[in-house]
Amino acid sequence: MSEAISPLQAATGLTDYWSPRVIGEVDDSYVKVAKVKGSLAWHSHTHEDELFYVLQGSLKMELRTGTVELHSGDMYVVPKGVEHNPVAEEECLLLLIEKKSTLHTGDIQTEKTRSIAQQLAS
Amino acid sequence: MSEAISPLQAATGLTDYWSPRVIGEVDDSYVKVAKVKGSLAWHSHTHEDELFYVLQGSLKMELRTGTVELHSGDMYVVPKGVEHNPVAEEECLLLLIEKKSTLHTGDIQTEKTRSIAQQLAS
Repeated sequence: MSEAISPLQAATGLTDYWSPRVIGEVDDSYVKVAKVKGSLAWHSHTHEDELFYVLQGSLKMELRTGTVELHSGDMYVVPKGVEHNPVAEEECLLLLIEKKSTLHTGDIQTEKTRSIAQQLAS
Repeated sequence: MSEAISPLQAATGLTDYWSPRVIGEVDDSYVKVAKVKGSLAWHSHTHEDELFYVLQGSLKMELRTGTVELHSGDMYVVPKGVEHNPVAEEECLLLLIEKKSTLHTGDIQTEKTRSIAQQLAS
């Protein structure tokens, strides 16, 4: 029998920005936490939606049609195929729900891109 | 372009205990909120994991092998096929991630059982 997990505590413990860490799984999705600051990169996920939940801080989700502002306790789902760029002016802690197949920078590769293996590493 | 949602605010607005409300979807899963108090029922989901995240309050997840205690900000995933019974001594607000096919009382039907149509009703 496993224990309950505090995503906020797990995210607080991260040392690198934009380097998501898998903390659990639910069916064919991973539950991840991330510590972010600055801008990630414009990208999209052709086949997967992506859920963002703000554990602490604020996030601006830039979309080609406008910007969605998320504050602590807010959630937003980026639909599959929609170009987006998450931006955090100050440090922000996130919970993410993503298909196991999802690449966090989607269809592009940047110096911030982390493989699933890196996200699973303890 | 849709707006960000506050699951806590959505859960606070619920009037009935154990009557989950769908507030979003991510791929083939629903994001739900629920206001709970007391004991639901022992049940399992043969084919689906079920994610519980405590927005406010505390929850005891009774399992046949012991009890997992969740406090505000804690998360727990009940694996598919595992019998469980969520119990809240005081009112508790939950965020749930469940496959669209998941019946919230699983393989049993009780007076608390709500259909997916009821959970989608606004």
